[in-house]
Amino acid sequence: MKEFLGKDFLLDSPLAQKLYDEHASKMPIFDFHCHLIPEQIAHDYKFKNITECWIGANGYGDHYKWRLMREMGVDEKYITGDASDREKFQKYAECMPYFIGNPIYEWTHLELRRYFGIDKPLSPETADEIWEKANEKLKTLTARRMMEMMNVKIVFTTDDPVDDLHFHEQMAKDKTLKTLVRPCMRPDKAINVERDTFLPWLADLSKVTGKEIKVLQDMLDALDERILFFKEHGCVATDHALDVLHFSPKSNSYEEANKVFLKALRHEAITLEDEDVFKGFMMLHLGREYHKHGFVQQYHIGALRNNSARNYARLGADTGYDAANDQVVVEKLSALLNALDSTDELPKTVLYSLNEKDYVSLMTLMNCFQGGGIRGKMQLGTAWWFNDEYDGMEYQMKRLADDGLISCFIGMLTDSRSFLSYPRHEYFRREMCNFIAEFVNKGRYPNDEKLLGKIVEDISYNNAYAYFLGK
Amino acid sequence: MKEFLGKDFLLDSPLAQKLYDEHASKMPIFDFHCHLIPEQIAHDYKFKNITECWIGANGYGDHYKWRLMREMGVDEKYITGDASDREKFQKYAECMPYFIGNPIYEWTHLELRRYFGIDKPLSPETADEIWEKANEKLKTLTARRMMEMMNVKIVFTTDDPVDDLHFHEQMAKDKTLKTLVRPCMRPDKAINVERDTFLPWLADLSKVTGKEIKVLQDMLDALDERILFFKEHGCVATDHALDVLHFSPKSNSYEEANKVFLKALRHEAITLEDEDVFKGFMMLHLGREYHKHGFVQQYHIGALRNNSARNYARLGADTGYDAANDQVVVEKLSALLNALDSTDELPKTVLYSLNEKDYVSLMTLMNCFQGGGIRGKMQLGTAWWFNDEYDGMEYQMKRLADDGLISCFIGMLTDSRSFLSYPRHEYFRREMCNFIAEFVNKGRYPNDEKLLGKIVEDISYNNAYAYFLGK
Amino acid sequence: MKEFLGKDFLLDSPLAQKLYDEHASKMPIFDFHCHLIPEQIAHDYKFKNITECWIGANGYGDHYKWRLMREMGVDEKYITGDASDREKFQKYAECMPYFIGNPIYEWTHLELRRYFGIDKPLSPETADEIWEKANEKLKTLTARRMMEMMNVKIVFTTDDPVDDLHFHEQMAKDKTLKTLVRPCMRPDKAINVERDTFLPWLADLSKVTGKEIKVLQDMLDALDERILFFKEHGCVATDHALDVLHFSPKSNSYEEANKVFLKALRHEAITLEDEDVFKGFMMLHLGREYHKHGFVQQYHIGALRNNSARNYARLGADTGYDAANDQVVVEKLSALLNALDSTDELPKTVLYSLNEKDYVSLMTLMNCFQGGGIRGKMQLGTAWWFNDEYDGMEYQMKRLADDGLISCFIGMLTDSRSFLSYPRHEYFRREMCNFIAEFVNKGRYPNDEKLLGKIVEDISYNNAYAYFLGK
Repeated sequence: MKEFLGKDFLLDSPLAQKLYDEHASKMPIFDFHCHLIPEQIAHDYKFKNITECWIGANGYGDHYKWRLMREMGVDEKYITGDASDREKFQKYAECMPYFIGNPIYEWTHLELRRYFGIDKPLSPETADEIWEKANEKLKTLTARRMMEMMNVKIVFTTDDPVDDLHFHEQMAKDKTLKTLVRPCMRPDKAINVERDTFLPWLADLSKVTGKEIKVLQDMLDALDERILFFKEHGCVATDHALDVLHFSPKSNSYEEANKVFLKALRHEAITLEDEDVFKGFMMLHLGREYHKHGFVQQYHIGALRNNSARNYARLGADTGYDAANDQVVVEKLSALLNALDSTDELPKTVLYSLNEKDYVSLMTLMNCFQGGGIRGKMQLGTAWWFNDEYDGMEYQMKRLADDGLISCFIGMLTDSRSFLSYPRHEYFRREMCNFIAEFVNKGRYPNDEKLLGKIVEDISYNNAYAYFLGK
Repeated sequence: MKEFLGKDFLLDSPLAQKLYDEHASKMPIFDFHCHLIPEQIAHDYKFKNITECWIGANGYGDHYKWRLMREMGVDEKYITGDASDREKFQKYAECMPYFIGNPIYEWTHLELRRYFGIDKPLSPETADEIWEKANEKLKTLTARRMMEMMNVKIVFTTDDPVDDLHFHEQMAKDKTLKTLVRPCMRPDKAINVERDTFLPWLADLSKVTGKEIKVLQDMLDALDERILFFKEHGCVATDHALDVLHFSPKSNSYEEANKVFLKALRHEAITLEDEDVFKGFMMLHLGREYHKHGFVQQYHIGALRNNSARNYARLGADTGYDAANDQVVVEKLSALLNALDSTDELPKTVLYSLNEKDYVSLMTLMNCFQGGGIRGKMQLGTAWWFNDEYDGMEYQMKRLADDGLISCFIGMLTDSRSFLSYPRHEYFRREMCNFIAEFVNKGRYPNDEKLLGKIVEDISYNNAYAYFLGK
Repeated sequence: MKEFLGKDFLLDSPLAQKLYDEHASKMPIFDFHCHLIPEQIAHDYKFKNITECWIGANGYGDHYKWRLMREMGVDEKYITGDASDREKFQKYAECMPYFIGNPIYEWTHLELRRYFGIDKPLSPETADEIWEKANEKLKTLTARRMMEMMNVKIVFTTDDPVDDLHFHEQMAKDKTLKTLVRPCMRPDKAINVERDTFLPWLADLSKVTGKEIKVLQDMLDALDERILFFKEHGCVATDHALDVLHFSPKSNSYEEANKVFLKALRHEAITLEDEDVFKGFMMLHLGREYHKHGFVQQYHIGALRNNSARNYARLGADTGYDAANDQVVVEKLSALLNALDSTDELPKTVLYSLNEKDYVSLMTLMNCFQGGGIRGKMQLGTAWWFNDEYDGMEYQMKRLADDGLISCFIGMLTDSRSFLSYPRHEYFRREMCNFIAEFVNKGRYPNDEKLLGKIVEDISYNNAYAYFLGK
């Protein structure tokens, strides 16, 4: 029986321990996809207490934890309601022992250990003591300090194309900031032509570029300008929420896409077929731009969002009411990637799916588009969101190794809004070292520590660096 | 190497053994979903021999075993045909060694041990001896005795709304019956408007309620009356075979649903769209009634039944010719649950799927509907039917822990018609204790035996009790 | 830690080791599905060097390896381009250490050991030495010698119905050939009515049979003649690439299928509905013929081929640009199998899927069609193509055991064009012995070595022999 979160946590063999201790643990963190708020880094934000860090405040918060508290039967008052921070923390502490097996249990306690130096398990009995100690520590634990403690070298935030990036500009000039912070462009609102966010966003785009937007080409020109603007601010990556994959043979036609665009301008109803045409067209246009500028594109596939309309009305999006869809995705994805590839304009692409049933298809499909002399050009992203746990990461790594090359894997990211989320990199690295070591332990790979150490260091940091920032 | 079905069977660590021995094994059994025949409990049925128990008689039987015997190449004569019980037993014994790895192998031998005190593996060599011994034992092993031996405290049978529940009435008055037996309502025939069972069932409903049924509202009134009747007989749970999920935006409209109902009355063909409208409407109506009465609803999703028309013609339903479908299910399920949730009338709900590819979606979707202060309001049911085996249960528990809280899990049920099926609870509890212990063994949870023991006891019995019968 | 590819490779217990050493390893190989080129066996082909064996020559090659080299960023020149064989080998050697975890890593080194007596891991450092040694060995290692070394007793090649089988005739007469080589008929071109291969193939069929083909019945007559011709040449098995499952209620109608046939003759566009009608009809016709002649049919389901149009134009099919589809498949497959079963004309059938998400459905569906006194009539084929690796084979065996009988499993095949691929049988057998032994180690099956040895020998060879060639 291992010590709880002890030295050999997740490391089941001496080789795994050695790979972690002497290789993986020494690498810095490159968190290439997250939702940190640039302002909080720029202004080196201080948290008023541990409840703000963990459960939330000011309308933001950790909906992973909210879901579990709801499942425990906790009254919403203590989750997103008007209970005091101390009361919310108490409820969280009461729930904690029952989070056994869920990643929140391990994350919470890794965070207590790594940032706060607290080894005790959180429970109703320890709640008082931990509340005091953690809050005391938070007086000095600023946003930047949290990143420095965890050896975070590079971070990509997630930014709308119309964002003026002024916090990024500020950070770029700030010599005291030890972490390299770059924007990552997420143009979902440009693509979701059927939503009521489209026209307001278009107005913002018009404003920020000073361009009048009357036809689709105007929007494309303005977007291309924003891509250049982001590139000037160090952006090398983009991100797309492809909840549903849209593509049609007509997606190759500007005229057809413009028809849909004009319908949207006229406030006409957008059909599913319109979405296929327009969204497919936009993914092609943007993909080609990304390729031209050497950007990486990330596709996040398969979220089924805001399932409870009642709670969406109450709290808005990203509040714990999302699920993994189970749609068929591969044929449309193949058509989209092939359209980009047919003129050799497919950029480096990272595919994520919220449903692990898609991994076999995504892996085998993406490996049809490897090549061009780029190592690991196409990537299956690490286990995303609901899959970001022990079994989910294990399955994702199995698929990587079984159907392709885990040695080329760009590894972990937090996808998080929290400065306390970096121990997830530690968690990943431990599991990954264990996974790699098992090949040797089982006689499936020779015990060549130099090589194994290099592979482990590559997956921890070097591969991502080369992929996004190399050359 | 462990002893065959020995003390440490499925228990891979001292902690797992301790959790099982000192906690799980001591809890009574609450079998909240099964197909026991109420008459057999009421009359304390005696089986004429072990073939009747295991392979069947009088048109009923264990189609799990039939499938395996067919796969072994056994002539149908010895399965559902006119061979003698002794001959059928012989064939079963001949097959048995080749059932390695299938749950039937373990179940058969656990049953021999726990009910009959027979430790020898069944094979052609031991067939004579076991036939004699088991049949001797069956002279005293009645239906009730079998339940008492296994510490079965509570059982929910599965009953049609038109059932008069007179066996249940009889049992309620029977002071000698040590097991609490309650009905569970399964109104499939009210919903399957396209089948030729619909109108005859409607006639039965009319008869049992004394109501003339001319429009849909009449059927709803009659059904609501039956719900009350069931409630008066202790019913707190219902069950639905949602082989295919049907829902449409029109499912909110009584008028639209009534149109379909009237088509059915007129013997007109029911289209797939009609099914979406009507079945969705019925699930909404019933769900709201269940919510009003504090009932739990269970959805059994994804069976593809009666695949061999030739054998269906020969033997009818439930004879070993069913499979797991692979349809897309989540968007319609989300729409149905959301429609109930939108007025806060979603009852406690247990979701089962016959295809484990659905688990990721079901888990993440159902957790969008947790809340209202009810602990574990939404449940992913234990691995169902074809999944009721070691790997299936492991995967279901992994998903529970990864995407939510295994500590809130209501645990095992047999889904069986056999009084010999209770060792499946032992099997489940052993595996569950092993699963929980592994979190500690791997350093992912502290070694707090009091807490672990409580969690294990909760999953074995307490959670189900609180869920169905609490307060 | 185990020795790399040592004696206990993949064998995690003394029982597993014993089952492999004393039972599985002693059985000959029956490779009932492969793509060996009959001419190479007939003429006892000699390879000019190890690059030809491994990476390819003359337009053929191992696209499994090509994909990995592309993922490593190797220039296409060194994969399918005009680099020298020595240069290609060098690149392969440079990539090799980074193939950790992929089956190609283990296969490559098993091949080096079993055929060439080379124990050193391939790497840039050992490339020179291995190039020399392997090429020296290849002077005596002919196609037949490779098969003899691996104890390959029986091989089924894959042959078009219009093939004149003259190499097979030649081999049948060749007393020096120690391996029994039989044709297996693959009539995909007869079924793929929508492709531009259809009419040329029809011309070939007309020519080889001397029949004029004006209506569908003419094609059926000619095909039936070819089936007889194949049967005369020892054929007992057939194979179908069902990339997508096509079936329609009209597939029972000759008239409807003939309409599609005539459209194809007139070069008219074939719709998806036409494909459903025609392909379903053909599968029914052929299935009934197979049943009449006692043939086994194999369905390979779910490949999504030639995803990169650019590379298809460059290299053609089977060059590393295929993926696993994620379509819904079960309802149409059920309809097809049921149509054959309804008249009791369903032949023995082996189902393969490229997407393991289908296994639950395929297993549970196929077990609806077991019976007729044939042991293991319906089979879930071993893990295919992208799934032919440790985890893929484990999952396939789990499903076999969980939902049916692994003891009836017909086991391994290479699906390969390479004479060096036979160590995959060793790999499979090791994993299978380990899998079987675990039931005993965990107390789920008694330690009866005689029985276990028989089961292991059956899965290694006897089951396949009985299935294809028994009686």
